[in-house]
Amino acid sequence: MFSLRLPPWLPRELLRRGRAYKTVRERMRLVIELSWLNVERGTGGPFAAGVFEIATGKLIAPGVNLVVPAGCSVAHAEIVAIILAQRVLGRWDLGAPDLELVSSTAPCAMCLGALAWSGVRRLVCGARGSDAERIGFDEGDKPARWAQSLRRRGVEVVQDVLRPQAVEVLRAYRDAGGVIYNGRPRCR
Amino acid sequence: MFSLRLPPWLPRELLRRGRAYKTVRERMRLVIELSWLNVERGTGGPFAAGVFEIATGKLIAPGVNLVVPAGCSVAHAEIVAIILAQRVLGRWDLGAPDLELVSSTAPCAMCLGALAWSGVRRLVCGARGSDAERIGFDEGDKPARWAQSLRRRGVEVVQDVLRPQAVEVLRAYRDAGGVIYNGRPRCR
Repeated sequence: MFSLRLPPWLPRELLRRGRAYKTVRERMRLVIELSWLNVERGTGGPFAAGVFEIATGKLIAPGVNLVVPAGCSVAHAEIVAIILAQRVLGRWDLGAPDLELVSSTAPCAMCLGALAWSGVRRLVCGARGSDAERIGFDEGDKPARWAQSLRRRGVEVVQDVLRPQAVEVLRAYRDAGGVIYNGRPRCR
Repeated sequence: MFSLRLPPWLPRELLRRGRAYKTVRERMRLVIELSWLNVERGTGGPFAAGVFEIATGKLIAPGVNLVVPAGCSVAHAEIVAIILAQRVLGRWDLGAPDLELVSSTAPCAMCLGALAWSGVRRLVCGARGSDAERIGFDEGDKPARWAQSLRRRGVEVVQDVLRPQAVEVLRAYRDAGGVIYNGRPRCR
């Protein structure tokens, strides 16, 4: 049996807000704030995500990167948000009502795959994959034109939302000497 | 909080064996048997996997597809095996001692990404992705030459091990009217 638990600070932070996030920028602002908190409180990598209802802006489930604390390489922020949203809604298809995944950095190869299976109808990204690679993270072998691939599957893609603010978190993490946990010395 | 639990029949089946799986074919035979059991007992899709120690053949963790029963689109057999193996070993890098992922069908786009982050040093596949697609499953947008991409990352790839036997499970699942859970009618 495997359990995934959000950091103890997270539900409190969100309960305090108790409101909908009307615009894509508001949703991204929340997600970037969660990525900051995850770094500051030392509970994982500099990435956060959230599954929102597109029409109302209601947050269905947040996610933060938990790879190191959970000892689980699969626990990227997007995966955490998707599985928690599916648990909240009690179903494995997030297709109706229309939901979106907001991610502080464009998803890696694994998370792009997970996104396609999750049923979300829109992806909103802050920092680019190349921004994460610049600080040493590996984005994996994504399809060359991944945004186009998603659109072909009926998933809208919105990029570069508050990108400078999202990049700031990545830089702060690197400058603080944060673990670049995907680096496996034996094959680089 | 999210929990992932193997079907109740699974640990018993494995405890009963209590032995190492010396050859790649023996490991694949076990994994294919798990995929049969998962279908027969109605606990998920027709896919199974296992993380083994390459040198000894010791099974570190099995995995079966749990998407429908767990209500979680991420719960593919490979993901389940990886996260359980990391829990058993208490670390997010399965790189040393050398471990391998044995999968009854070649991994989809998400699982290929997860495999790269997991640190396993070898992938062994039974059925091909095209075999799964033939019964209606979607393999996602994999890199065109995914096996080559993995090899570049230092992951050995062995394909077509007991492929006919692995394909038989897929066919039986389709013939029994099993749920093809990745089919989202709105975008196909």
